[in-house]
Amino acid sequence: MERKSLQDQGSVAHCYGCGPDNPHGLRIKSYREGSEAVCTWQPEPYHCGGSPEIVYGGIIASLIDCHSVNLAIADAYEREGREVGSEPKIHYVTASLSVSYLLPTPLGPPLRLRARVIRSEGRKSWMSCTLEAEGKVRASAEVLAVRVQRPARPNPTR
Amino acid sequence: MERKSLQDQGSVAHCYGCGPDNPHGLRIKSYREGSEAVCTWQPEPYHCGGSPEIVYGGIIASLIDCHSVNLAIADAYEREGREVGSEPKIHYVTASLSVSYLLPTPLGPPLRLRARVIRSEGRKSWMSCTLEAEGKVRASAEVLAVRVQRPARPNPTR
Repeated sequence: MERKSLQDQGSVAHCYGCGPDNPHGLRIKSYREGSEAVCTWQPEPYHCGGSPEIVYGGIIASLIDCHSVNLAIADAYEREGREVGSEPKIHYVTASLSVSYLLPTPLGPPLRLRARVIRSEGRKSWMSCTLEAEGKVRASAEVLAVRVQRPARPNPTR
Repeated sequence: MERKSLQDQGSVAHCYGCGPDNPHGLRIKSYREGSEAVCTWQPEPYHCGGSPEIVYGGIIASLIDCHSVNLAIADAYEREGREVGSEPKIHYVTASLSVSYLLPTPLGPPLRLRARVIRSEGRKSWMSCTLEAEGKVRASAEVLAVRVQRPARPNPTR
């Protein structure tokens, strides 16, 4: 049986980073693997930074953001003993994102993300995430995600 | 006389976030305005987050990254009393990026970025940056950029 990604079970249809229904987006797919979530993503040649040989830092931040928030959502379902994507839907948004770019990321090989929930308290979940290429960690990050009733509320404070 | 953006004076031709020569990229344009750098950028409908009405956080991080690093580059030229883009070229890369998402960012109106250099020491420059929509700050960030000889060195440590 083909394993379904967190995104394909969840509620992020439109998201530029991970929405299965966004044809222009990055469409990342995250999977549970033990206590972690993992994702493998293939950049395109135009996802480069100041030079054509390295991956753009903003794309790295985007991958980390989506991967970590999808894990926060999956983890919240699990803590409630529910299947990911079951009703009522669980939504999280990113409250903060902090990325350290440790090494340049070569553009060519697939990128591998690993995230885990390091703490969860009330509506808040903190994730740590790394991005590897060619077996080396190129970036590490911490992400704080906050559970919300609905993902879109352009005006009121979260 | 038309004012040239920092990107059009500099050396970021290919960058997905701000390279004038990257047809797939975001192609942001940053301008000096007093002690700040400013940028106005119009998102497309597909630059949405978990909901179609809000801007994706990864795009916000990308805009902040490029805008701030272009300011670091311009500031370094200015400290040397040189024109931005003059030879020898000055290159910076992002070492860390920390974004706080304060309010949801509505998708529709143009986004306005403001950044300033808060500290500069040796090869390192720290920038603070805000992103506004409809007159409200939606995200604030700190970026650390490090001067490098060349922007691409996929293997050695920065």
